[in-house]
Amino acid sequence: MKLNCDLGESYGPWVMGCDEAVMPYIHQANVACGFHASDPDTMARTVALATRYGVTIGAHPAYHDLVGFGRRSIPHTGAQVQALIWYQAGALSGICRAQGVDIGYIKPHGALYNDMMRDEPLLRAVLEAAAMFRKNLPVVLAATPRWQQHQTLAAEYGVPVWFEAFADRAYDDTGALVPRTQPGAVYHDPEAILEQALSLHHKKGLRSITGTWLELPSDTLCVHGDNERSVAVVARIRSALEGRP
Amino acid sequence: MKLNCDLGESYGPWVMGCDEAVMPYIHQANVACGFHASDPDTMARTVALATRYGVTIGAHPAYHDLVGFGRRSIPHTGAQVQALIWYQAGALSGICRAQGVDIGYIKPHGALYNDMMRDEPLLRAVLEAAAMFRKNLPVVLAATPRWQQHQTLAAEYGVPVWFEAFADRAYDDTGALVPRTQPGAVYHDPEAILEQALSLHHKKGLRSITGTWLELPSDTLCVHGDNERSVAVVARIRSALEGRP
Amino acid sequence: MKLNCDLGESYGPWVMGCDEAVMPYIHQANVACGFHASDPDTMARTVALATRYGVTIGAHPAYHDLVGFGRRSIPHTGAQVQALIWYQAGALSGICRAQGVDIGYIKPHGALYNDMMRDEPLLRAVLEAAAMFRKNLPVVLAATPRWQQHQTLAAEYGVPVWFEAFADRAYDDTGALVPRTQPGAVYHDPEAILEQALSLHHKKGLRSITGTWLELPSDTLCVHGDNERSVAVVARIRSALEGRP
Amino acid sequence: MKLNCDLGESYGPWVMGCDEAVMPYIHQANVACGFHASDPDTMARTVALATRYGVTIGAHPAYHDLVGFGRRSIPHTGAQVQALIWYQAGALSGICRAQGVDIGYIKPHGALYNDMMRDEPLLRAVLEAAAMFRKNLPVVLAATPRWQQHQTLAAEYGVPVWFEAFADRAYDDTGALVPRTQPGAVYHDPEAILEQALSLHHKKGLRSITGTWLELPSDTLCVHGDNERSVAVVARIRSALEGRP
Repeated sequence: MKLNCDLGESYGPWVMGCDEAVMPYIHQANVACGFHASDPDTMARTVALATRYGVTIGAHPAYHDLVGFGRRSIPHTGAQVQALIWYQAGALSGICRAQGVDIGYIKPHGALYNDMMRDEPLLRAVLEAAAMFRKNLPVVLAATPRWQQHQTLAAEYGVPVWFEAFADRAYDDTGALVPRTQPGAVYHDPEAILEQALSLHHKKGLRSITGTWLELPSDTLCVHGDNERSVAVVARIRSALEGRP
Repeated sequence: MKLNCDLGESYGPWVMGCDEAVMPYIHQANVACGFHASDPDTMARTVALATRYGVTIGAHPAYHDLVGFGRRSIPHTGAQVQALIWYQAGALSGICRAQGVDIGYIKPHGALYNDMMRDEPLLRAVLEAAAMFRKNLPVVLAATPRWQQHQTLAAEYGVPVWFEAFADRAYDDTGALVPRTQPGAVYHDPEAILEQALSLHHKKGLRSITGTWLELPSDTLCVHGDNERSVAVVARIRSALEGRP
Repeated sequence: MKLNCDLGESYGPWVMGCDEAVMPYIHQANVACGFHASDPDTMARTVALATRYGVTIGAHPAYHDLVGFGRRSIPHTGAQVQALIWYQAGALSGICRAQGVDIGYIKPHGALYNDMMRDEPLLRAVLEAAAMFRKNLPVVLAATPRWQQHQTLAAEYGVPVWFEAFADRAYDDTGALVPRTQPGAVYHDPEAILEQALSLHHKKGLRSITGTWLELPSDTLCVHGDNERSVAVVARIRSALEGRP
Repeated sequence: MKLNCDLGESYGPWVMGCDEAVMPYIHQANVACGFHASDPDTMARTVALATRYGVTIGAHPAYHDLVGFGRRSIPHTGAQVQALIWYQAGALSGICRAQGVDIGYIKPHGALYNDMMRDEPLLRAVLEAAAMFRKNLPVVLAATPRWQQHQTLAAEYGVPVWFEAFADRAYDDTGALVPRTQPGAVYHDPEAILEQALSLHHKKGLRSITGTWLELPSDTLCVHGDNERSVAVVARIRSALEGRP
């Protein structure tokens, strides 16, 4: 089980996230590419930081929406989404190559991620875009009860899938994340987060908000480096996954 | 002698230039990368068009300034310019790779180009950025009487240089372009343009606005696809260079 | 019956529309405010042009989306839409005041206009925003069979409504515009356009695409200055409305 | 002696400054207008906060440069700067009017401020823009030994001037701020800041970095709400100016 984290989300003079603090504990850095956050300087610094810790760099492409942080669903055709992905993954790849590394995967961000998980033609567009960008480049998808269907779909395009789950979010019985607006949607208690992380790691599933068991095979957990407290949780998850006390 | 042309300069709903008309006559397309013009869709269309005609695709990175079309000099450190170049060249390269091609050179745009020709530390930053982006990737520089010095400089970074000259612009005795604000700075007469193109091609130089001979070895002429008239001139230059009537 | 036209839609170096040509024939200029098109310079030029012809200046606020030209529906709360409107109407008003004039109405643009006509809470937000911006500032709404309901709604906020209709678009039996993707949706024949304009003017209604009579009281017709041909049609509509041959 | 502070500098999801904390201690809020920072939502919140504390709201227009935070000098003609000012002051004024208030002055931001203080034609363009925007609208200028000349200039346009000085910056013997890159340029010791504030208030001048006395009549001190520490200093300056212990 790997840990992935959205970062490189500062923009010009505005700082966001504790990238320096969280980098030592994660395996995969989802690096913003300038459309929902970041700029070329910030990207160069973020790539340097990830490289220093041997963290795999992933492109985190988004709809072009800085003010909305890529969280608003903006209508796009499949072809437009593909061009967005090539542009942003290419831009990050260019910055990587100048430092002797390259991107290792693609994880769509925010509303693009949600739209893709909801809309099969859009998901196909994303998978095809990844395949056309680089053979065998993995794409991160949400782990859901439909994971086998998604794997089959990705295989059509020859795209490896990394399923990601959330240790700090409640799932409903359909395997969807409970919306943040509902009570109990987000776990703040580190023990509860740790328990769900270990359940996902060892038992390949978790208990939904109603107590129902959900099989949810996952390759990577999405963790958060927003602040000191969340970084401390990430450090504990990393230790727990590695069987350290 | 090759012909290069700035294109792919439309932006969202706004159309600029006669790309379809000029593409058949040029060898090298300087493709805008989203910072002074263009967007991912436009870039994908432009790459497809260039590929259809076997035209070499060059990244045309610029300061981030759509309203000013990259023509305003915005203060940047060398490191910032390098990040700009990696981002933009990478973005275009990503869009190219999805179509089975790649960029063949870098030509900085507008104010970035002028600043680079005026400021050696900035020129060094550009050359180093190109070398770090891809070994042996050529950079287009203005052909000036200092061409040997520029070639030596580029060789330090292992960067091939393509010198470009203008067939439709008057040069002063120092080898600088006469500013557009001065009378006679821009040639509108096709015969005059053709004459300067052929002089650059066959005699490796031209006569300045005062009649002085300037040695100006050039690899490529910058031509313009702004409108039907300028495209017609490009067609004539191409024929003349190839010795066709 | 007045004629209104979207204009001032150039952006930086990109020119759109024949503003100079169409301005003499219209009564109301819907001036882009920098979010879907235009920039401060373009706005200043557009206001000067409208003022020269005594044309009433309207703010044409939009979602912030240059690449999509404000035609993509981006999720916004009512409060966010109000802030968008105050910002854009204020910006245009600032440019107007420097020239001794002011805005005379507000017409939301593109997706914001469509969303407002479809979503009553959003329409209420727009109306309230106009009332809070300036007492008695008219808002342009689409003329539909629900016009009385819209008028009542606007009256709650003390906002005068100007209903607009289209002379060059087919309406379905519900009073909605036939989508552009359907055949016959847009009239290209000047005679058909003129006939619908005169029907709206004299009979306060039109025949739908199926031949059904629709009562559609309108205050203003939306006309187009995109190109020479459409400007010629505008000139003919203006003459016809004024009873000139 | 008033206290003015740059604020409303958050942007979309990115938070900057301690606006809530500093607002109670200042008289004048220089509110970012969306070109170097801020967005319509942030502006609406900032205006509401300033209004709650009875703080005078000033437009803080800038070159359009979010990534560079308006601190990079971008070439503009006087007419372009005027359109920038009308747009931004108008936008803020629109948001103000919806809350029953209005802007009380203009203070150009960052590079625009520096350029204006250095370049008389640009200063004239700014003063004329303010006068054309609204009769008697004050403009904030840096207090320098040339203050009388600036006052005469502003009077030509009928523009009231508010001179501002800095309590936490060292001045050289010409009355210019010592560049931040030099040692001793910025005072961090609250006692030193307080001393300079009181000197400016009571003695209408200060001692330069070499100990020379500079007469520097000022109307307002620029203070900083960046962080808790700087807010604490502002609170102390406010108390000291009011003769409270």
